[in-house]
Amino acid sequence: MSDAPIITPVKAAPTVVLTVAYDGLPFAGFASQPGFPTVQSSLEAALRTTLRCEIETQCAGRTDAGVHALGQVVSFPATGSESGSEEWLRSLNALTPDGIAVREIRYAQPRFSARHDAISREYRYRLVTGPVPPMFLAPVAWGLKRPLDIEAMRRGAEFLVGEHDFRSFCVSESAIGKRTVRRVHAIEITEEQHLGEDGLMVRVVGNAFLHSMVRTIVGTLVEVGRGKKHPDWVREVLEKRDRAQAGPKAPACGLTLWKVEYRPEVWL
Amino acid sequence: MSDAPIITPVKAAPTVVLTVAYDGLPFAGFASQPGFPTVQSSLEAALRTTLRCEIETQCAGRTDAGVHALGQVVSFPATGSESGSEEWLRSLNALTPDGIAVREIRYAQPRFSARHDAISREYRYRLVTGPVPPMFLAPVAWGLKRPLDIEAMRRGAEFLVGEHDFRSFCVSESAIGKRTVRRVHAIEITEEQHLGEDGLMVRVVGNAFLHSMVRTIVGTLVEVGRGKKHPDWVREVLEKRDRAQAGPKAPACGLTLWKVEYRPEVWL
Repeated sequence: MSDAPIITPVKAAPTVVLTVAYDGLPFAGFASQPGFPTVQSSLEAALRTTLRCEIETQCAGRTDAGVHALGQVVSFPATGSESGSEEWLRSLNALTPDGIAVREIRYAQPRFSARHDAISREYRYRLVTGPVPPMFLAPVAWGLKRPLDIEAMRRGAEFLVGEHDFRSFCVSESAIGKRTVRRVHAIEITEEQHLGEDGLMVRVVGNAFLHSMVRTIVGTLVEVGRGKKHPDWVREVLEKRDRAQAGPKAPACGLTLWKVEYRPEVWL
Repeated sequence: MSDAPIITPVKAAPTVVLTVAYDGLPFAGFASQPGFPTVQSSLEAALRTTLRCEIETQCAGRTDAGVHALGQVVSFPATGSESGSEEWLRSLNALTPDGIAVREIRYAQPRFSARHDAISREYRYRLVTGPVPPMFLAPVAWGLKRPLDIEAMRRGAEFLVGEHDFRSFCVSESAIGKRTVRRVHAIEITEEQHLGEDGLMVRVVGNAFLHSMVRTIVGTLVEVGRGKKHPDWVREVLEKRDRAQAGPKAPACGLTLWKVEYRPEVWL
């Protein structure tokens, strides 16, 4: 017999987990900001209507204004009022504005957090190069008038793969007094055709990202692709731990939060 | 010796041939209409600026308001003021509005016509089905809330392949007193993923098309895909030669004039 007090386990609520796509253009980013249209406030308004109570959501990646998402993950504790998934999916999609689509509803363990439990995040950045400007890809790509040296960009990208201090690749103010070490699992640059148009896709996968990190990586690699800088310069930028050393931030419209991964055991 | 008069051959001007992509949404169709923004008037204005004379263009397919093009072909006799292709391509793209991209400039034989010399035209119609509405594909797809029976649609489409009188599949008034026989080379329905979203593509290839023919074919096949009609009904619709028998016209936004083919010997 132990002297430990008898603890009655409290059955905590499971977590509702939404996969959400959105067009970044009409929104001032994901996170709620009073007086601005945001993805979070639009989603929470739709949840409030269907669940009849205030819902506070967490997200896997707080995307900036203009940045798109295909696989943003949003979580909140279940209220008990949730209806069958497909019907609820239709209601949420009917209630959210045109630029937001709820793609999937899943359930995870109690106390699951879309943000803290994410083990990897994948962003993709699309570029269209050459004398023909992007047409159907224009809303989701950065158009550059001259072709890029993809091989040089790939050589530059290799220096960024692994665990590094990415202080040079984030908004300076956001890094003050904070840990800026992140692990980049992979950077792949591939030629892809979508909607009949040729594009270049930069796929960046990592455990977590600093503010504007992907856009600064892409802007830096584009300097290399344009031939303005040697691929080795990317290593120098990384080592200097100073945002002023890196290339300019690539425009928001080319970036999409593509996918977020969790351990399989979190799902109910 | 013949008595025929001696004819001095007049060296006719070669033909300039543009491949043009456009977003249908901002335009009242391809063909010029006084008081409306059209693709033709925007293109001719850009040509007038670069060539310093009035240009009258011909096109391979007069698309309706809202219909997109990836490979519209536009032709006009060369004026002699045309500059090197890549520079001219950049100028034309700088001068046309955002929704129009000139993709390629080629030269064809004198008296070539984008319309009369076309030997086949390919249109593609994109559908997104299910409880999740199209997001990045929304501007170029018809979103349907319920899934479609693709196999049934394919069986219905088979009746339309070959040379037939397509009077049931065109705008009634446009068919009065006109020949309405056309040859459809192929109709293919495939599942495709673009921009991370799943869609259904209906690819229709034929020698030429009547007014609204592709949209009426798609609207009719969707009736079959929804299970409202049996695939054999498509044959009945065709045989009745009466527009009132076919399904409703599918929305313009899902349709793209994809590609136009010419005999190889037309090119200079």
